[in-house]
Amino acid sequence: MIDLDAYLSECRDLTLNEIKSIIPRDRRYREVLYDLMLDYPLRSAKALRPALCIATCRALGGRLESALRSAAALEMYHNAFLIHDDVEDGSEMRRGKPTLHRTHGAPIAVNVGDALLALTLQPLLDNTATIGLGPSLRILETVARMARESTEGQALELHWIRSRRWNLTDADYIRMVYKKTSWYTFIAPAIVGGIVAGRQAKELGQLRKFAALLGIAFQTQDDILNLTTEVGQYGKETAGDLWEGKHTLILMHMMRHATSQERDLAREILSKRRPAPLGSQSAPPGDPRNLSLEMERLVSEGELTTRGRARLMQSLDGTGRHDSGEKTDQDVRFLVTMIDRHESIEHARKVAAGYVAKARKALDAAAFVAPSVHRDFLESMLDFVASRDH
Amino acid sequence: MIDLDAYLSECRDLTLNEIKSIIPRDRRYREVLYDLMLDYPLRSAKALRPALCIATCRALGGRLESALRSAAALEMYHNAFLIHDDVEDGSEMRRGKPTLHRTHGAPIAVNVGDALLALTLQPLLDNTATIGLGPSLRILETVARMARESTEGQALELHWIRSRRWNLTDADYIRMVYKKTSWYTFIAPAIVGGIVAGRQAKELGQLRKFAALLGIAFQTQDDILNLTTEVGQYGKETAGDLWEGKHTLILMHMMRHATSQERDLAREILSKRRPAPLGSQSAPPGDPRNLSLEMERLVSEGELTTRGRARLMQSLDGTGRHDSGEKTDQDVRFLVTMIDRHESIEHARKVAAGYVAKARKALDAAAFVAPSVHRDFLESMLDFVASRDH
Repeated sequence: MIDLDAYLSECRDLTLNEIKSIIPRDRRYREVLYDLMLDYPLRSAKALRPALCIATCRALGGRLESALRSAAALEMYHNAFLIHDDVEDGSEMRRGKPTLHRTHGAPIAVNVGDALLALTLQPLLDNTATIGLGPSLRILETVARMARESTEGQALELHWIRSRRWNLTDADYIRMVYKKTSWYTFIAPAIVGGIVAGRQAKELGQLRKFAALLGIAFQTQDDILNLTTEVGQYGKETAGDLWEGKHTLILMHMMRHATSQERDLAREILSKRRPAPLGSQSAPPGDPRNLSLEMERLVSEGELTTRGRARLMQSLDGTGRHDSGEKTDQDVRFLVTMIDRHESIEHARKVAAGYVAKARKALDAAAFVAPSVHRDFLESMLDFVASRDH
Repeated sequence: MIDLDAYLSECRDLTLNEIKSIIPRDRRYREVLYDLMLDYPLRSAKALRPALCIATCRALGGRLESALRSAAALEMYHNAFLIHDDVEDGSEMRRGKPTLHRTHGAPIAVNVGDALLALTLQPLLDNTATIGLGPSLRILETVARMARESTEGQALELHWIRSRRWNLTDADYIRMVYKKTSWYTFIAPAIVGGIVAGRQAKELGQLRKFAALLGIAFQTQDDILNLTTEVGQYGKETAGDLWEGKHTLILMHMMRHATSQERDLAREILSKRRPAPLGSQSAPPGDPRNLSLEMERLVSEGELTTRGRARLMQSLDGTGRHDSGEKTDQDVRFLVTMIDRHESIEHARKVAAGYVAKARKALDAAAFVAPSVHRDFLESMLDFVASRDH
């Protein structure tokens, strides 16, 4: 079997070299912009998207060199969205280092993301000189579609979060994940690879099916791992999704099967904020978590009255929405108990396994993908999703 | 002479209809995304960019219908950046209404901006069917260049803000404004209009020169108006740029000509925060301005000690940077006095008039732009910049 890590790492090195050649070198903007654009891409990461794009292209007989500029554009797109996501979520760490907005402030971070997005267009236009007009335009249309699908998926999830909606079905989850994860991480890279290799609509449709199913399996498995893996092994705090109140298949299943009393309690817990890491002073400026910790201390030291604290909390939340406080260990334990009782993880495992099986069938049906180390990479993605523990 | 407002208003209506036809109607995403994408475009605005694109195209004999999709894409681009800027700056109002992040929260607002950006690509690809491959690709390259230039200009300005740099020359200002204002608001719309009309590099180069010079004059004039116009007439708080500490030609000139003692005091003032509007509770959640106001009140009412207040202010500013407090009326009056003493507004007026004159010369030299109501519009932009008082 193929060495997955070695394949990924080779694709990543090639993609990074390409990205470095795309980002301008003009000295006047190097320190204020270009170096910052390379920060996230150069941090340790799998770089799944470019590998999928390159592997699909080469598995279909396309040339590595023809795929590199598109692979690099997809990876730049991804890093731009990571920067914006980190600003939106007030995240502190990314790939083992402080987030860009923590080191340089939110305005610079948002602009670096916008600059990465801006620079994805020219390499995709450069394609016209190497792979021809028709394929280049179809790649641009694929990227336009990808961007639309992922912002629609994001809109759905943000709407659920803001309206605190939990009466959701597996189908709701799968629609959201199809748009947010499948299109962005799997479908677009695979289709772009196929277009570079000169393939037409029918074969691209089969690739798309495989990638869509794989993406849904991947995200569901990711949600399961978040709840079942110990700290260190998975690199995130255990059950981080529960602390965040993320809309996963698992939580939706639990909410559907809970008694109405359990559901009310769970809803109340899920609407609470995630507390800051213990003793942390490092949340972004203005993050309510910094202040609520410090206010607790001031109240206990007699420097602030509880009435004063309530008023400060209210003016913190400028939207006038009620602040329901922070989740506690007990809150999260309650959610875990409910998830266990309703066997929601088992349900998610079945769903994930079902999608892996369907994706495998879709790849098996794609006989036009001849055997090669590159096809092996696509196969091994299935095994990776089915058996991954990190 | 042409009726500038009527011309702008006609172009705006046509562009809005086009934008409405570009944004999908799928019911499942209407409320959570598409309606929000139309919010800013539908608010009252001049819509300078599409008018410039349409006027240039028609002045060169191009068809209105051929320019509309590109004009709409430019306007969508602009509205996307307005949404992102408002989030970055924590702005409260935009075009007379609350900003999108105030009504829907920052994550949804950032996503709506990303979705508008995402949807600019497809209409520019649609161009291939109407104006041909070559022009369509050149328009895409122009938009790619515009996006790169404006993020570079933005990076320069953000770097000056963050490093509190004020030893800057007219040339520094003009380079920044050429990238941020000229490329984005004038050069790209004019060149795109020219490409739609089938013009080639030489003529596009002349259009670009005109647009670049006009853009610099426009921005300089904008900065002057900010300092010289009464509330109401100009629609912003008078001297808003001084309260913000914006890097204008005027302030740079004053800083260059001030004594070292004056300069030190001015630097100290400029590094202070802008205070919240009086009695405002409406800054975005977590905005330090909400809290510092409420803390003042709590201290005066004995609910919070001054020591407690200092600690809260420190934990608000998670970057650990020193918070230098809020600007006062006296601070801003000092800046105004310095600006008067060093005749910095007069200097800016001379610079603006010089660029209007150069822009007029550039348009006069563009004999290939035949006389028409559309050329009149371009001419009247010069008069508008030279004499505008709003």
